[in-house]
Amino acid sequence: MNESLQGVVRFVGAGPGDPSLLTVRADSLLRSARVILHDDLVAPEILALASSEPVVLNVGKRCGAKRITQGEINSLLISAARRGFDVVRLKSGDPAVFGRLAEELDALSAAGVAFEIVPGVSAGMAAASSLGFSLTDRRLSSRVVFASAHLAPGKDAAPGENWRGLAGDSTTLVIYMPGHHLDRLQEELLAAGLAPDTPAVLVSRASTPAQREHYATLATLASSPVVEAPSLLLLGRAVAPRPLSPALDSAPAAAQSDWESFLDLLAPDASFARVASLQLKERKSTR
Amino acid sequence: MNESLQGVVRFVGAGPGDPSLLTVRADSLLRSARVILHDDLVAPEILALASSEPVVLNVGKRCGAKRITQGEINSLLISAARRGFDVVRLKSGDPAVFGRLAEELDALSAAGVAFEIVPGVSAGMAAASSLGFSLTDRRLSSRVVFASAHLAPGKDAAPGENWRGLAGDSTTLVIYMPGHHLDRLQEELLAAGLAPDTPAVLVSRASTPAQREHYATLATLASSPVVEAPSLLLLGRAVAPRPLSPALDSAPAAAQSDWESFLDLLAPDASFARVASLQLKERKSTR
Repeated sequence: MNESLQGVVRFVGAGPGDPSLLTVRADSLLRSARVILHDDLVAPEILALASSEPVVLNVGKRCGAKRITQGEINSLLISAARRGFDVVRLKSGDPAVFGRLAEELDALSAAGVAFEIVPGVSAGMAAASSLGFSLTDRRLSSRVVFASAHLAPGKDAAPGENWRGLAGDSTTLVIYMPGHHLDRLQEELLAAGLAPDTPAVLVSRASTPAQREHYATLATLASSPVVEAPSLLLLGRAVAPRPLSPALDSAPAAAQSDWESFLDLLAPDASFARVASLQLKERKSTR
Repeated sequence: MNESLQGVVRFVGAGPGDPSLLTVRADSLLRSARVILHDDLVAPEILALASSEPVVLNVGKRCGAKRITQGEINSLLISAARRGFDVVRLKSGDPAVFGRLAEELDALSAAGVAFEIVPGVSAGMAAASSLGFSLTDRRLSSRVVFASAHLAPGKDAAPGENWRGLAGDSTTLVIYMPGHHLDRLQEELLAAGLAPDTPAVLVSRASTPAQREHYATLATLASSPVVEAPSLLLLGRAVAPRPLSPALDSAPAAAQSDWESFLDLLAPDASFARVASLQLKERKSTR
């Protein structure tokens, strides 16, 4: 087979669900794709962007109900590329975060199939943005830990062992796929030394119109309702939702201005005016 | 003042640098913005997308050389919104990750100014994607820690204390702004128990044409060259770069197909064919 006729497999981050949170490149690849293999968690709104009549194959494995194995997915990607198909392998969020990307990359590398990875907005970022808080905060949280309750190592470890050192007061925990055993997670995080009054929020279908959130503390976490997948749990001192103003959607087009009127705005404050004037000068001199 | 004439402040993730890795929404906001306040680390390629003649103010504070204080930035955002300007507050990567977002949100909330946060692709994701590895790997790494060498708490703590529990074998560390003191970072990570042969890569200007990377292990990290900002350090067993095939850019348009020929491709394998046929049926029945 002529190797130059091989297709390319593009691992594309589908982002958290809102189509406007796709990257420009992902949006473009999706609209022109003729073959798309996607996971269960990719939002229907995203798939709806695909060009007319593509081959769209759901190769998802939800909750362990394996309809197709990882080995079969790997073989399918390789076969398709070898027959000249360019394949968009669509993964929710960012492909490099809990997307089983490594196994597919290893299979393609071994088979000599070309690939590209297009990063995406991870659901953890989108959840924080939608609720008005930052994952890091100089005053409260200097680290973010992305973890998965499913993937936690050492299931037989003593309670707390899995999270020792990860659950400090200056850490924001983002737990993907927290599952239904929040009581066990709560027990482990308490055993790891996290304070009972640590703020927490469970977010379902972040960034979509169906987004729902449930606020709790670590102490009350176990009594949280079951929420629709995909969901996330965020815990830490930085979890401090700020209401977005209701004016957000209804504000009329605001008055616009130019450099001169903006300088007028700055005039009362010497330091702003100094910075802005300097940049205006630089701007004029480079034109 | 008529509150309905207030502007909205939009915190917009500028992504890692490649303009095609902006979100669709960020791209659209940037192209129509008349007032943009951005940090130093936002790539020029991104700023170049702005509409003609916007007010673009660099409010960055690089390496501690404060040209404008955080308080002054907060006041400027509030003043601008109150005078009816819609402001795009552009932050590199994702605004909720090491972007000092929380302080600006607090100031706007206290002042009753409406805001929106548009998440973005963080540089850690883009660096991994560009080098062909996944941040998580079921076989190797079940967690990702985003940390900042600058923001690490307890500067006076014993070596290793800052990283205890964070530096396990099953964790991928993504250190933003690793700075010039890699020797100290190396010492701390070794003291925290990370193995000397842990793979590491220092990535400068991820996702841009100027991207450079330097591979090391934790043992050799201290002798890494100084790289251009913005930079990142990634460490962990999952840091296993796979060369992207040179065919990637030069491949001719691959042969295209439709459902029927794709089913032919699948035919030799009963399980693929079963899945695909089922989905084809579903597809036809919903049309």
